[in-house]
Amino acid sequence: MKKHIYIYSPSSAVRDKASFKRGVKRLQVLGYEVEIDEAALAKYQRFAGDDAVRIAAIDRAAASGADIALISRGGYGLTRILPAINYKALAKAIHKGTRFVGLSDFTALQLAVLAKTGAVTWAGPALGEDFGTAALPDDIMEACFDDLVTGQGEGTGWQLPKIKPLVATNSIAEGHGKICPTYDFCVKDATLWGGNLAVLTSLVGTPYCPAIKGGILFIEDVGEHPYRVERMVTQLLHAGVLAQQKAIVFGQFSNYKLVPGYDSGFNMAGVVARLQSQVKARVLTGLPFGHVATKVLLPVGARTTLAVEGRDAFLLWGHQH
Amino acid sequence: MKKHIYIYSPSSAVRDKASFKRGVKRLQVLGYEVEIDEAALAKYQRFAGDDAVRIAAIDRAAASGADIALISRGGYGLTRILPAINYKALAKAIHKGTRFVGLSDFTALQLAVLAKTGAVTWAGPALGEDFGTAALPDDIMEACFDDLVTGQGEGTGWQLPKIKPLVATNSIAEGHGKICPTYDFCVKDATLWGGNLAVLTSLVGTPYCPAIKGGILFIEDVGEHPYRVERMVTQLLHAGVLAQQKAIVFGQFSNYKLVPGYDSGFNMAGVVARLQSQVKARVLTGLPFGHVATKVLLPVGARTTLAVEGRDAFLLWGHQH
Repeated sequence: MKKHIYIYSPSSAVRDKASFKRGVKRLQVLGYEVEIDEAALAKYQRFAGDDAVRIAAIDRAAASGADIALISRGGYGLTRILPAINYKALAKAIHKGTRFVGLSDFTALQLAVLAKTGAVTWAGPALGEDFGTAALPDDIMEACFDDLVTGQGEGTGWQLPKIKPLVATNSIAEGHGKICPTYDFCVKDATLWGGNLAVLTSLVGTPYCPAIKGGILFIEDVGEHPYRVERMVTQLLHAGVLAQQKAIVFGQFSNYKLVPGYDSGFNMAGVVARLQSQVKARVLTGLPFGHVATKVLLPVGARTTLAVEGRDAFLLWGHQH
Repeated sequence: MKKHIYIYSPSSAVRDKASFKRGVKRLQVLGYEVEIDEAALAKYQRFAGDDAVRIAAIDRAAASGADIALISRGGYGLTRILPAINYKALAKAIHKGTRFVGLSDFTALQLAVLAKTGAVTWAGPALGEDFGTAALPDDIMEACFDDLVTGQGEGTGWQLPKIKPLVATNSIAEGHGKICPTYDFCVKDATLWGGNLAVLTSLVGTPYCPAIKGGILFIEDVGEHPYRVERMVTQLLHAGVLAQQKAIVFGQFSNYKLVPGYDSGFNMAGVVARLQSQVKARVLTGLPFGHVATKVLLPVGARTTLAVEGRDAFLLWGHQH
């Protein structure tokens, strides 16, 4: 039986309808049954329908019984409807086996679902930008997506950047010879959470920000200058969020511009290094996730083990419903 | 005796040295004695000196005994040094009569000082952008500044925009016939606070965000699309900050670009109207403050009365030390 994918639009209106169509076609070529929500191409102002339309679309995705509920795109629109979301219906759908997949603005819903219900959603692709590319979609993204659909994905790995390995001399995580004797560094059975940094920080102080202790936090962003990234990370630091984490994993920070002759060495590497000097958590970089083609899928809210051996890093979550 | 103005750089490095010089010259022409901090033109990466240099500059401004401590410019750099600020020294200097004036990134220090000590600082101009303009500085800004220096300013007023007066049918503030019988709308003796919205929201959930009840909150920003403004305002809403305010006053939101054919009516007016539908506080607009030439000075943390009569709005704080 074909796996069933439900496409809906909880955030911004689809602008690039060609990508949307190509994405649907691609999923069909890959052997999936694709169902398109009735409001997937709706538009009200910059949104994929007004608030009521998008709330109803999320409800339909939850009621669809699909294997995967995949967003058409991110953008903006979820934070403002968080109080009106039917979290119980989402948790029920997740319990029955529907995996909610998305990124960017979708982080708001993912973290709110985690905060309100503890249910796991998936940080991963969006239809248009990831499956609807003019060229063929990214191999790794497709393989990870297929792993999720077929229930075979149990973790992911990536290579840490070569430049200056970050030595966490003050790490609070389990070290060599203890719980994970075969790894240089290991955090066992911790809650993996995070997503888009701007969206995550926009939830700080609200009931939609999960309070995760001993967690593995991953972050990514697009079009944000490193000074803005640092300001956001600083908010998490000063709010006490980072002190509660055992690891902080930087995904891809893309599409920003440094100011030549002015930034003068202020850059993402410096933001990361400064953060490592301020937190006990181990700070890692290079996670293939964010507003880039090559992205893995990550279970937001799942018990996960992080292991590092040399330059190889792994996130292992076992089998997740 | 000439009034004494101390110029220092707590945030970004001064890029436009011509504006800096013109600003100093202008203040001298206006009859002030201008003292320039030794690190006012320092540069480390994008900052006006490294963190220690900027922290020391703030200490020197506090120790200067000046009538006014004026920032050279905003930018970025204060949020990351908030834990290292000597708040007692600042409060002491303020008590002795030094008024700290600035905006933008300076909002971080202003709100932290308010949260930590309750002391009043002034939202107002920066040296370069406001006094160092190629043409003559703005009249109103200069008059308000002079009022502060000479201790004569006791309030400010502006005209509310003509378009669709915002009717606050659910306002919790004192109404006609009660405390302020001669005004259409009035909030008496409330704490005025606020500043740059992006900086303010970056403090939510941290110890540097003052918990103001029954306040008058003013906000402004530059280069932020209305959807980002809405996301920030939504954070304040969901964090419970707005429910505690009696009035929310929008200053100037400048230098952003709508996307023709896509935003389709989503704009600042809509953000304001939607907010008014969500809060009991009265939402006002048009305050001449922000990243614009014509700006008034506002005492952050001062007991203030807001009065509205027809299209005329007033903020009255009496005499402030």
